[in-house]
Amino acid sequence: MNASPIETEALVIGAGPVGLFAIFALGRVGMRCHVVDSLGEPGGQCMALYPEKPIYDIPAQPSILAADLVDRLLEQAKPFRPVFHLGQTAQTMEAGPKGGWRIATSAGTVFHAKTVIVAAGAGAFGPNRPPLADLESYEGRSVFYMVKRPADLAGKKVVIAGGGDSAVDWAVLLAGLAAKVSVVHRRAKFRAAPDNIAKLETLAQAGKVELVIPYQLHALEGADGRLDAVVVADLDGGTRRLEADTLLPFYGMAGDLGPIGQWGLALAEGRIEVDRASFATNRPGIFAVGDIATYPGKLRLILSGFAEATTAAHAAFAHARPGQALHFEHSTTAGLPPLA
Amino acid sequence: MNASPIETEALVIGAGPVGLFAIFALGRVGMRCHVVDSLGEPGGQCMALYPEKPIYDIPAQPSILAADLVDRLLEQAKPFRPVFHLGQTAQTMEAGPKGGWRIATSAGTVFHAKTVIVAAGAGAFGPNRPPLADLESYEGRSVFYMVKRPADLAGKKVVIAGGGDSAVDWAVLLAGLAAKVSVVHRRAKFRAAPDNIAKLETLAQAGKVELVIPYQLHALEGADGRLDAVVVADLDGGTRRLEADTLLPFYGMAGDLGPIGQWGLALAEGRIEVDRASFATNRPGIFAVGDIATYPGKLRLILSGFAEATTAAHAAFAHARPGQALHFEHSTTAGLPPLA
Repeated sequence: MNASPIETEALVIGAGPVGLFAIFALGRVGMRCHVVDSLGEPGGQCMALYPEKPIYDIPAQPSILAADLVDRLLEQAKPFRPVFHLGQTAQTMEAGPKGGWRIATSAGTVFHAKTVIVAAGAGAFGPNRPPLADLESYEGRSVFYMVKRPADLAGKKVVIAGGGDSAVDWAVLLAGLAAKVSVVHRRAKFRAAPDNIAKLETLAQAGKVELVIPYQLHALEGADGRLDAVVVADLDGGTRRLEADTLLPFYGMAGDLGPIGQWGLALAEGRIEVDRASFATNRPGIFAVGDIATYPGKLRLILSGFAEATTAAHAAFAHARPGQALHFEHSTTAGLPPLA
Repeated sequence: MNASPIETEALVIGAGPVGLFAIFALGRVGMRCHVVDSLGEPGGQCMALYPEKPIYDIPAQPSILAADLVDRLLEQAKPFRPVFHLGQTAQTMEAGPKGGWRIATSAGTVFHAKTVIVAAGAGAFGPNRPPLADLESYEGRSVFYMVKRPADLAGKKVVIAGGGDSAVDWAVLLAGLAAKVSVVHRRAKFRAAPDNIAKLETLAQAGKVELVIPYQLHALEGADGRLDAVVVADLDGGTRRLEADTLLPFYGMAGDLGPIGQWGLALAEGRIEVDRASFATNRPGIFAVGDIATYPGKLRLILSGFAEATTAAHAAFAHARPGQALHFEHSTTAGLPPLA
């Protein structure tokens, strides 16, 4: 916690595909960087949500798996020797003691950065939480957003909430293991792989899973983090009480600007407003690129973020080294420049 | 020449990497297109100038040969069935009979296009021509910018102008074939592959090539396109007369906006000015992307052009199909959409 601050010309916040390409783009203009990400590995949503899904709209990659895209971006960034600080969230930003910015992470790492490129995508990533009173007191004890060890749920009365793939898959998997499985969904139809929906309906007809539809979560009953029942409500306000000792809400994942929202950066609709010519924010030396940035005409595509990162790197160079001319040559002519 | 006009929702001018990706970007929003290029094959400068050179700054391609980049972009565009019209230059643009634009090419092909994406790079590509009086009358008869059949030069008195690879290579190649080879270069040093320079100097010492340095081209003598002599001048204005029946100026290639410069598009420094949010030009329905487009903060990188093409395709959709909502999903979710 009390290590010396890390002095750096550039700090990249976010190690998703756009943050990884920002390392390369900075490297091309001769700047090394440190990189912070809240996840435990590089790749952002590509790795956290859909590593095995093919992406079709990366230029000159007719089809590439998200995980392979990340691998190639890491390979491309590697010559520029980025230093990764993973599993920690950038929390506070304030003016640095010698100009620039002082950024501190949830792990206590402190950077003094001349320039910052925020490539934090949808922000720090986490599960969508249902709006229930006292939810926090149950989280991690009776309420879980992911199942790490299915065996822990053997013999339990489990309520699953949600209508997507996770809800359906876990209902099918836990049907033979838990004492009771109820699935609460606010619609009559599930939105998941058809063969898994068919399995779920077969289990429901056999009485091995109860489908509580269309209902939504209403309240939790219990004490000291131990759940006794989940109360659900139908669309007319009628309620039912489901005995339960475990609730698994599967409402997908979402990003949250989180602490970045408190940095004094100008925002619009939950995104960081940038100058289209440089991707500069309203704070000098802080740039934002990729999904977290917004400007007129913005498309939230990985490929747009790549181009934005390149422009931001040029602008970061101009900011970090005022008066120094950037002799930029095409990579076909220059090859990869050596770094100082 | 008198074929019916081709009706199309989108016309892409330029089949370089950015034009090829524009085909894909249009396809992703459900629009098919026709593509015009002055060169005889797709790929633009990548194929014409440096097919065997590696490019290092395409995202997720740590190193890719220019020719391979073009192959992959063609593969990615293929599902959208573009129709190529190669070896012809887009020449005239005027308001179309039913709205949109009427574009005619040097081969007489006529398009009625609702939208046009100009991705013409540095413009129609051609050799740099020396500023000599009456040059046109000799071109194609005694003055050539490339050598198609070296055997045609057997027994000729050849003057080669230039100091780069082409000048040096052809001087070496023609030394044993032509009656006389003179190399005119305005500097004492050549800028070419060292081993070829060494060969040239050996030939010069053996009297098989005359090095006329430092001199530059001054005038042509002859009549009816038949050259008698090339007059060269040194830096002090002193002239020499070199008997010659063939002049080969090798001053590199350059782009020229050419006819596009006469289309009434707003220009800045020889590039087309665009609106940064949509890449729209001042003419409704005409967009410009890649090296030919300019706006504040523009970087002339292939990767910037890719992102621009995607944004322009969205804007072209809105222009071509007013009132139709674009249901755009990420490619990981939607896969590649079927085309109408």
